[in-house]
Amino acid sequence: MAESISVSVVGASGYSGAELLKILSRHPHARIDRVFAGASAGKRVDEVHPWFRGGLDLVYESYAPELVDGSDLVFLALPSGEAMAIVPELLERNKRVIDLSGDFRLPDPAVYRKYYRREHAATHLLSQAAYGMPEWNREAIRSSRFVANPGCYPTSAILPLAPLLSEGVVGDSGIIICSMSGVSGAGRGGSVETSFSEVNESVRAYKVGTHQHIPEIARGLELASGRNVSLTFTPHLMPITRGIYTNIYAPIAADVDEERIAAIYRLHYGDEPFVRWSAEAIPEIRNVTHTNYIDIGFRIDRENGGIILLSAIDNLVKGAAGQGVHNMNILFGFDETEGLL
Amino acid sequence: MAESISVSVVGASGYSGAELLKILSRHPHARIDRVFAGASAGKRVDEVHPWFRGGLDLVYESYAPELVDGSDLVFLALPSGEAMAIVPELLERNKRVIDLSGDFRLPDPAVYRKYYRREHAATHLLSQAAYGMPEWNREAIRSSRFVANPGCYPTSAILPLAPLLSEGVVGDSGIIICSMSGVSGAGRGGSVETSFSEVNESVRAYKVGTHQHIPEIARGLELASGRNVSLTFTPHLMPITRGIYTNIYAPIAADVDEERIAAIYRLHYGDEPFVRWSAEAIPEIRNVTHTNYIDIGFRIDRENGGIILLSAIDNLVKGAAGQGVHNMNILFGFDETEGLL
Amino acid sequence: MAESISVSVVGASGYSGAELLKILSRHPHARIDRVFAGASAGKRVDEVHPWFRGGLDLVYESYAPELVDGSDLVFLALPSGEAMAIVPELLERNKRVIDLSGDFRLPDPAVYRKYYRREHAATHLLSQAAYGMPEWNREAIRSSRFVANPGCYPTSAILPLAPLLSEGVVGDSGIIICSMSGVSGAGRGGSVETSFSEVNESVRAYKVGTHQHIPEIARGLELASGRNVSLTFTPHLMPITRGIYTNIYAPIAADVDEERIAAIYRLHYGDEPFVRWSAEAIPEIRNVTHTNYIDIGFRIDRENGGIILLSAIDNLVKGAAGQGVHNMNILFGFDETEGLL
Amino acid sequence: MAESISVSVVGASGYSGAELLKILSRHPHARIDRVFAGASAGKRVDEVHPWFRGGLDLVYESYAPELVDGSDLVFLALPSGEAMAIVPELLERNKRVIDLSGDFRLPDPAVYRKYYRREHAATHLLSQAAYGMPEWNREAIRSSRFVANPGCYPTSAILPLAPLLSEGVVGDSGIIICSMSGVSGAGRGGSVETSFSEVNESVRAYKVGTHQHIPEIARGLELASGRNVSLTFTPHLMPITRGIYTNIYAPIAADVDEERIAAIYRLHYGDEPFVRWSAEAIPEIRNVTHTNYIDIGFRIDRENGGIILLSAIDNLVKGAAGQGVHNMNILFGFDETEGLL
Repeated sequence: MAESISVSVVGASGYSGAELLKILSRHPHARIDRVFAGASAGKRVDEVHPWFRGGLDLVYESYAPELVDGSDLVFLALPSGEAMAIVPELLERNKRVIDLSGDFRLPDPAVYRKYYRREHAATHLLSQAAYGMPEWNREAIRSSRFVANPGCYPTSAILPLAPLLSEGVVGDSGIIICSMSGVSGAGRGGSVETSFSEVNESVRAYKVGTHQHIPEIARGLELASGRNVSLTFTPHLMPITRGIYTNIYAPIAADVDEERIAAIYRLHYGDEPFVRWSAEAIPEIRNVTHTNYIDIGFRIDRENGGIILLSAIDNLVKGAAGQGVHNMNILFGFDETEGLL
Repeated sequence: MAESISVSVVGASGYSGAELLKILSRHPHARIDRVFAGASAGKRVDEVHPWFRGGLDLVYESYAPELVDGSDLVFLALPSGEAMAIVPELLERNKRVIDLSGDFRLPDPAVYRKYYRREHAATHLLSQAAYGMPEWNREAIRSSRFVANPGCYPTSAILPLAPLLSEGVVGDSGIIICSMSGVSGAGRGGSVETSFSEVNESVRAYKVGTHQHIPEIARGLELASGRNVSLTFTPHLMPITRGIYTNIYAPIAADVDEERIAAIYRLHYGDEPFVRWSAEAIPEIRNVTHTNYIDIGFRIDRENGGIILLSAIDNLVKGAAGQGVHNMNILFGFDETEGLL
Repeated sequence: MAESISVSVVGASGYSGAELLKILSRHPHARIDRVFAGASAGKRVDEVHPWFRGGLDLVYESYAPELVDGSDLVFLALPSGEAMAIVPELLERNKRVIDLSGDFRLPDPAVYRKYYRREHAATHLLSQAAYGMPEWNREAIRSSRFVANPGCYPTSAILPLAPLLSEGVVGDSGIIICSMSGVSGAGRGGSVETSFSEVNESVRAYKVGTHQHIPEIARGLELASGRNVSLTFTPHLMPITRGIYTNIYAPIAADVDEERIAAIYRLHYGDEPFVRWSAEAIPEIRNVTHTNYIDIGFRIDRENGGIILLSAIDNLVKGAAGQGVHNMNILFGFDETEGLL
Repeated sequence: MAESISVSVVGASGYSGAELLKILSRHPHARIDRVFAGASAGKRVDEVHPWFRGGLDLVYESYAPELVDGSDLVFLALPSGEAMAIVPELLERNKRVIDLSGDFRLPDPAVYRKYYRREHAATHLLSQAAYGMPEWNREAIRSSRFVANPGCYPTSAILPLAPLLSEGVVGDSGIIICSMSGVSGAGRGGSVETSFSEVNESVRAYKVGTHQHIPEIARGLELASGRNVSLTFTPHLMPITRGIYTNIYAPIAADVDEERIAAIYRLHYGDEPFVRWSAEAIPEIRNVTHTNYIDIGFRIDRENGGIILLSAIDNLVKGAAGQGVHNMNILFGFDETEGLL
């Protein structure tokens, strides 16, 4: 185990990047080396995010690969499409990389092209990326030097569903996922669509049936449970800053009862530090805000032969930066909860 | 057609009641006779709802049946359980009644008992209530003197789904409904659960699989389409004041395309004044706020053999008071849109 | 009195412009002739603002002066700086004009330059504009063909203060104004500063001591009361869509009591259709939302020799489009409340 | 310095109490001994506040004095009026006490009676309470066993103003304070006034000129600066959960410039760990949320001979629990920032 590591963050001016800086700055074994940004290069971090005033004495730089030579780990908090341009040079320079973008989560470049609407620029590295969901891929992460950190919606959907698929108590088709996300998930930027006056006092679905997280959810479920599933996913934008709430409907065998479900969650998640499940309590976003927890609840709908799974996460923590630091802790042999409780 | 009618409202201090007063006070053929409230009896309407200052010169009274002798119509905006106590005496006095509560929407008292968790106190009148959804029950409403106004969630779910069921293009099982409601749907009152600090920046499901609108949705769909359906319904509370957003997933026959769906909506709703549907646009709550419209959108999910229906309404207007006034217009032969555009 | 007039709106795609279309489309004596927009030219109104679907069948055009030849009145809902470029040609073509921008509210071009940070391009017309605050300038408006509609903050500050200044019961220096505005006041557009994630769960002051409404408030108070005042004004952005709340602190003579204040408001506003004042009730924004009312309250602070005035308006209605239509009603001899109750 | 202390919290089910538990549970030198609540006695902390699930294994008990015999320190997070009933017995039992209520912040029982509208029940202890504002009363706190933790509004108003008063650059009359608070300041409970539907999309002033924090602000300023001031204070409720934003207007001597103000803040707060001030940046609530910082900004209004001070705090942290733990750190000789960064 390293005593302490040096970490750089590329794309550190957005919301996920800033959340990463917040967690890393309190982490006992990490030292933030350099922080990179595009338009904000040259500005102090606490000028762009004044929340950090008094706590973080760093200036955004323009990224260049040689600038991270002194770093043990590089986090990429870039938009999808930008990460794949710099991952190759980082891996060639022997850096460990945790990529928060969607660029390396889908093993098949054709699927990437279909959902991200661009060609993949580093297909030779797709097979090297470990999907960074500790609960289901811990050993692969541990032995990897390149982690593709999961998306926010997939985290909220895979974790509740994977154990039930894995144990064969739910069917693998007819899975319906209805998710609602806070606005920070759309990133930091100025658009009419995410302006306060358009989002406030409203709700709307978007990218219905076409969202890039659809194949990632399917792939993550396959990775975790070994089963191929077909699913329908509808994301919604709602007027909160942080948080994702997810509903999952899945067909269930007639003889499966609440105790069996509870036993399955206990089996799979009993030792997991960041999964809280309950057979009674209904998750609420405010219970997980600013934490790395996922809260999972469920109800069996006997009349219709289905189960309703409910989950809540903080999209910037468990859905991005927190899960990223969890992966960092695994990569470097730190206690998994370090910096995250 | 009556030139002008005299209308009283019982339970006029809550949010639905106040919305009713707002619409009625602008209606060219209605005159508000008396307004009744419980704890607010003796107070001026504009003391409880100062929005009305300068516009409405009325005082809440304690209800007694003889006080509405001068009214042609009585609206009940009472909580479920309270309406059924006074409907009998109103009908005996030959009043026309539009009941906004859930007391007379379910024809079967056993189902009422199961979902409302109390005995029905006026079962002999259940068969007399016309279910007040104009788009599907116009003739029954017209010839009725007692209308059970639909619930907010049922309105948002039945209207998108009924035409497709009616035409046989969607299946009648495996229907999944995921709805999100603003807080005004919980009524006006003080509880920790609906306090600002608990609702803001959060989302939560509630009454999962047990909500009293489940049998109402099923019954409304049967009334409209003649088909018995099984469905799963999960309502969510979200931090907005007004509005319901509903997602419906239903299995669809393989040969049904977007044009067929559009043709069905055109056929059923082409002449409806308050249904706006689109094959392209995704509904948003803010587009229907303070209106009596329902906005309907859809996407076919070919890979999974399903259709995703989306709808948005203002729960206090189309989901309560506005639909109530629409029923009033039908009952008394006014133009259906009077007071509602 | 004209039976009905033809009205065009330039800049009809922003929030004030859309509010104007909403009010005008329900006005019994106005017909919307043409609507103009910049980037949205060629789009239907209900594509940009789907709220209008089913109710307004209009397409945005690119403005050109000859296109309004058939209009009796042209509303300008353009940003400040753009209105002054087209007012001259409209007045030359003998159109009546109501300008919602700040371009013609300040009679002194030097003051305009200082606060708006640009040269005024039509200084010869400054003296022709009637300041469109009906309560204090009705006769000038009535005999005018060109109205400069007041700003939102000035409306909220001048109306509570002017009667007390006019009657000499408050001092003309040491006036402190603390205002809070919803985000729609910043216009429709995409900027990081007005994005949901930056505005939600926060409050901030802005343009402290430099806001362009400072000289307008002073000028409006002088126009109304004949007195020159010095004042300090601090606007705040807060996380609501619509509404302005204003606090005014002014020194008060020792012998002035609540009854005297009430008498003054009664004297000045007793017949005003859109001013609601109370010696007891504290204004709240939700009481005026979607109305053309201003609510005014007050408390005398005897210990400190001051009075605290409180007001609430809907910035898009009384603070913009509603007041504009009020001015239109005056200009054309319609009942003043037409279309506004 | 104690290695570690044992701490109990009475009134631990409200928002301030829960925030205290959150901070204490992460504090390296504090161990939570017992937690007390009224209606929630018998429930687990994480049942009332599920945010704590997995992190805090405690059950609320009904308070009795002997139950805290094992505690070194007792925090009271009770409503005003309830704290004074149990402070005497705790001090008699030789406990150190930090009281978050308003019961012991005003030395004069007549003033207490006037603003809190009840008799004080422990007047003999009023002089023993150290006013717990570390920046201005550090030595008294250090040598005390009983600390009256400051109110949220007073914290936001005293800290910006005290240095300027102390150095004689602002006048001591004509001080106007306009504050805006999130809803958590009203406590956890169910009332129509703090329900989501009444607070959302609105703003309102309350307790204008009568708020109990008026004499506390005056007393705190006198304690800090030695000067008696007269001030006008208007609090507002706004639709956010956490945070207070405060504007202060004070007359300023003609020769005082920005550099002088900056020099004064540097002198008084240069070594303070939780005061961030800036001559340029305007405070925003989101920059201090979930922190123990106060952000202070200012603008000189030369034309009117005044200065505008702006501040932002998290009402539950710097305005309550965080400041309380700061006081605890001082009382027990821990590093002042322990548990608070």
